[in-house]
Amino acid sequence: MEPMYRPRLLTPGPVELHPKALEALSRPQLHHRSDAAKQVFLQAKAGLEAAFQTQGQVLMLTGSGTAAMDALVQNLFAPGERVLVPVHGNFSERWAKIAKEAGLEVERIDLPWGQVVRPEHLGSATGPFAGLLLTHSESSTGALNDVRTLAQAFKARFPEALVVVDAITSLFVSAFALEGWGLDAAACGSQKGIMCPPGLAYAALSPRALERLKPRGFYLNLASELKVQSTGESAWTPAINLVAATAAVLEDLLPRLPEHIALKQHQNDLLYAAGQGLGLQVVPEARSPATTCFYLPEGVSYGQVKNAFAARGATIIGGQGQLKGKVFRLSLMGYSDLYDAYAVAQMLRDVWAELSA
Amino acid sequence: MEPMYRPRLLTPGPVELHPKALEALSRPQLHHRSDAAKQVFLQAKAGLEAAFQTQGQVLMLTGSGTAAMDALVQNLFAPGERVLVPVHGNFSERWAKIAKEAGLEVERIDLPWGQVVRPEHLGSATGPFAGLLLTHSESSTGALNDVRTLAQAFKARFPEALVVVDAITSLFVSAFALEGWGLDAAACGSQKGIMCPPGLAYAALSPRALERLKPRGFYLNLASELKVQSTGESAWTPAINLVAATAAVLEDLLPRLPEHIALKQHQNDLLYAAGQGLGLQVVPEARSPATTCFYLPEGVSYGQVKNAFAARGATIIGGQGQLKGKVFRLSLMGYSDLYDAYAVAQMLRDVWAELSA
Repeated sequence: MEPMYRPRLLTPGPVELHPKALEALSRPQLHHRSDAAKQVFLQAKAGLEAAFQTQGQVLMLTGSGTAAMDALVQNLFAPGERVLVPVHGNFSERWAKIAKEAGLEVERIDLPWGQVVRPEHLGSATGPFAGLLLTHSESSTGALNDVRTLAQAFKARFPEALVVVDAITSLFVSAFALEGWGLDAAACGSQKGIMCPPGLAYAALSPRALERLKPRGFYLNLASELKVQSTGESAWTPAINLVAATAAVLEDLLPRLPEHIALKQHQNDLLYAAGQGLGLQVVPEARSPATTCFYLPEGVSYGQVKNAFAARGATIIGGQGQLKGKVFRLSLMGYSDLYDAYAVAQMLRDVWAELSA
Repeated sequence: MEPMYRPRLLTPGPVELHPKALEALSRPQLHHRSDAAKQVFLQAKAGLEAAFQTQGQVLMLTGSGTAAMDALVQNLFAPGERVLVPVHGNFSERWAKIAKEAGLEVERIDLPWGQVVRPEHLGSATGPFAGLLLTHSESSTGALNDVRTLAQAFKARFPEALVVVDAITSLFVSAFALEGWGLDAAACGSQKGIMCPPGLAYAALSPRALERLKPRGFYLNLASELKVQSTGESAWTPAINLVAATAAVLEDLLPRLPEHIALKQHQNDLLYAAGQGLGLQVVPEARSPATTCFYLPEGVSYGQVKNAFAARGATIIGGQGQLKGKVFRLSLMGYSDLYDAYAVAQMLRDVWAELSA
């Protein structure tokens, strides 16, 4: 008889849901213009502003994280303006594509995937630039950029420019401080560190970014949202159930955010140690706590690894773009504790024993 | 002691959730690229195509219904092209705003709110036009347009043009047939007739519209979605939980859609009859089954009506735009049966007895 394995979602988003999110989603439907909904909206908004560490505003957009990235680019830069985009993975590549589609002039710094961006990489760009688009946690490679140092180096040369950060897999998982780190805007999504289902995007704007808004578009027009979100409403019908889930999780998460971030770091360290103990090669130069990323050894296909995890109840993910078929990734960004990391480390060892047999 | 009233959501979206939607939302989180998720995605997509009655494609977009409206305008018309937009309520006004923001030349036909559009209204426009933007159920006034007749009259003069319809509060509530009615594209949202939470938009494209696509934008680029949605994936992380809810409700709803539509009509007739029995004046010239809309009599404020319903557990909604403070609306578009309509009709009579006392 086959042993019974419980399902485990080990992907860097969507992730295992926080029980408070599930609880919020099982409530009767709220009308988004009711007082109860407005209260929940304002609670989520204030909590997100605390999490991003901004005195500006966080806007909630009904969409995936990409919607927030697109909205920030379109509303902070005018067509023809020049932005610098270091590209070293699937998500930094997305910044470049969004900026190009928005009519900006894009100067790319192409780096090998897995590497992080260093201040000297930015130094070679001549400018002038209206902005720098950075990826905090490049989860396609598992790399974590020091966006604070990069923003500082960039602004020393281009003090007028805006630094916009994809914090989609870093917020709630790694330390983050919008203005404190010299950043002007950042994007995040509900299905990542905040452990809710996908469908709600968060766009954080520093006070400086709020002053520099060049609104455009209709659905993703941030001026339309700014007009109403401080009253607990949104320009278009919001994914109010996800707003309620966001508020419910934040209530649990915010008071113990430093401990939570330490846990995510510890879990990721344990998984990396298990993989390295098996002789696996690590992809990222500097590791994001959002996901591990290992090269597949010669003779082992991604399909084999995926199936061996699936046979144990677990869903994992492979590589994207140029790393497709070359890597596999494991994430405990979702609802999980220290012992879940030991469990998954043991599963990785069992998978490897099976594949080596 | 106060009697206990159970909460009732009587608004034209969000609405009372279908139990199959709540059940789907309480499942463990799916990863959107897993085989299970792709299967659910394809099931929802096929069901939506049956509901819109299209041999073309329905694309699911993570966003509110407005996202689908914006996406259709941006991806079917190029800047500078001329579209005809009859405006007779808040949502037809939205078509005009979206088209203008997308750089189209907009010819408006302004009609008193509450009226419906008639073929003779379209006749006065000289054209030529690349498209006609229509609102099937103008839920701000409770009016239902005969979009089939309008499309026919328009295409007799402009056979090359595209007819795009806001079916946000008509699909699943009123009969609809995309190609059968000579329509080319339509938008809908998850929080309306399909009785799911808000956050997922449906964009239907007829085979003719698919051939005429002029894709633009990044997040709302329909070419990016078309490339992958027939394989059960989406360009950006989808609100997969809502996709699953959509699939689950469709499984129940599609086989008995004609009976469901007849029920919604019957419920709405009962509510109108109750209001007219109290001497209330009806706003729409032709009634959409999505919502009733009554004028507030002299001396009665919207706040009084809202509070009297709230004291009985019910959430209702007032007017928008130029009807703000002048009307109130009741909807049984959500999960409810014939006897719920009797219940709400009695509640309306009790509210009026209280306000008249």
